Amino acid sequence: MEQSTIDMARRILQAQPFSQLLGTRLNRFEPGRAELELELDERLLQQHGFAHGGVVSYLADNALTFAGGSVLGDSLTSEFKVHYLRPARGRRLIARAEVVSSGRRQAVCQCAVYACDDEGERQVALAVGTILPVAGARRDGKD
Amino acid sequence: MEQSTIDMARRILQAQPFSQLLGTRLNRFEPGRAELELELDERLLQQHGFAHGGVVSYLADNALTFAGGSVLGDSLTSEFKVHYLRPARGRRLIARAEVVSSGRRQAVCQCAVYACDDEGERQVALAVGTILPVAGARRDGKD
Amino acid sequence: MEQSTIDMARRILQAQPFSQLLGTRLNRFEPGRAELELELDERLLQQHGFAHGGVVSYLADNALTFAGGSVLGDSLTSEFKVHYLRPARGRRLIARAEVVSSGRRQAVCQCAVYACDDEGERQVALAVGTILPVAGARRDGKD
Amino acid sequence: MEQSTIDMARRILQAQPFSQLLGTRLNRFEPGRAELELELDERLLQQHGFAHGGVVSYLADNALTFAGGSVLGDSLTSEFKVHYLRPARGRRLIARAEVVSSGRRQAVCQCAVYACDDEGERQVALAVGTILPVAGARRDGKD
Repeated sequence: MEQSTIDMARRILQAQPFSQLLGTRLNRFEPGRAELELELDERLLQQHGFAHGGVVSYLADNALTFAGGSVLGDSLTSEFKVHYLRPARGRRLIARAEVVSSGRRQAVCQCAVYACDDEGERQVALAVGTILPVAGARRDGKD
Repeated sequence: MEQSTIDMARRILQAQPFSQLLGTRLNRFEPGRAELELELDERLLQQHGFAHGGVVSYLADNALTFAGGSVLGDSLTSEFKVHYLRPARGRRLIARAEVVSSGRRQAVCQCAVYACDDEGERQVALAVGTILPVAGARRDGKD
Repeated sequence: MEQSTIDMARRILQAQPFSQLLGTRLNRFEPGRAELELELDERLLQQHGFAHGGVVSYLADNALTFAGGSVLGDSLTSEFKVHYLRPARGRRLIARAEVVSSGRRQAVCQCAVYACDDEGERQVALAVGTILPVAGARRDGKD
Repeated sequence: MEQSTIDMARRILQAQPFSQLLGTRLNRFEPGRAELELELDERLLQQHGFAHGGVVSYLADNALTFAGGSVLGDSLTSEFKVHYLRPARGRRLIARAEVVSSGRRQAVCQCAVYACDDEGERQVALAVGTILPVAGARRDGKD
């Protein structure tokens, strides 16, 4: 995969104000795979000091979209399911997503989210979702 | 339901730095139901000017947890699935969640998210998830 | 909706050997809605005398497909999630599905499954899934 | 794992009339893993000659339950999601499930279903679900 492609994916991420607010970085983007990362600063926690579930699921959802996008082109998540496996504490979150199956109309992707600190990384969530190419969508935003 | 209960639920929401960052408010909290709301300011959008999926799913997930918590007490989301039905544009998002079924060990809840502006509100997402009482969790954060 | 349409839907159901094995009937088929029913005979149970989960999820899945098919034409289920809410005991199961949102490419449908006996009916499962039109699929069975 | 354990699991499967109707066999049952298999005879197909989705999801669901049961003891599926990846044709279906994460209260398991013939096996479905121990359930069948 040429450098230009990961650059384009990074520009999409940078064009998302919400991803900028959370400080998300794209570590990896190649056919069938994507990896996102963010620092778990104070703003992203819930009342017990763990990463808020909304941060974990945001990162999983976005990684699913990028993984799907690596084979479908500009894409969006149609639906996804996330299992929170354990409280997410650590210095940062990493989401690794991959394409399980893809066709002309959609890709099914799965994602593991890890909480990382000096001791290593531990899986905190599992997600599976359906990614659709934007090109197939109507211009009026329907479907 | 006494005022003290919705006050307690609001204190939980206020104790979540991430919910404060997003500006989430708890509009309604009664046995079997919860409603959350947030303003769709610039920071919460994606690259096409719609609410970022991560914001929509955060609000759905949190509303599911509060709906479950209204019958189970202090609770957490174990898993949920969200369908994005159409792009979320408007001035604010409202998530209305309700308990479908609950027992001693868990509650199954569903949630509709609406994008609202002067013209009215339009459903943008549907979510269904499993909520667990925190009391049943081990103190070491396992399970 | 003309009678010919529910007749066509019934012919599809009759052309499914597995639906014939289970004895499924199509009670209702109109734009946005479908209802399926089957008798809970001995063969369809699990080890505790309740309907096997596989029977409940089969009926939910099939009702989702027919509901989607009522607006999309010949259709298939891409994915679905089912929550088993309580043990399904009774004389028959009824699955009622409806379209939540549909576009050109897919429909999102939800379904409630009820166990019925002389006392009435009780919801035993909730399902939500994505339905795709077959027409958009490639002839080689891929995607 | 002692032979007695897989024997006990097989007795549970044999005690399910619906699994007997479909001809399901338990190939493998060890801590964290289970494998089920069935022959794709004529009765289990849909109108295009592929395995009916209900057969695929039944096998996935049951494999998830056995995988969870291998660490939790007597268990049931609380919820699961299945993605149908491609039409399932072949002589038999094999479902391989494993525990992703487990605690005292539940296990999260995933499952891949394969359609097999002389040419080899091909993944036709992916499922992820939550398994609960029966022991924690009330005797009245609630929760």
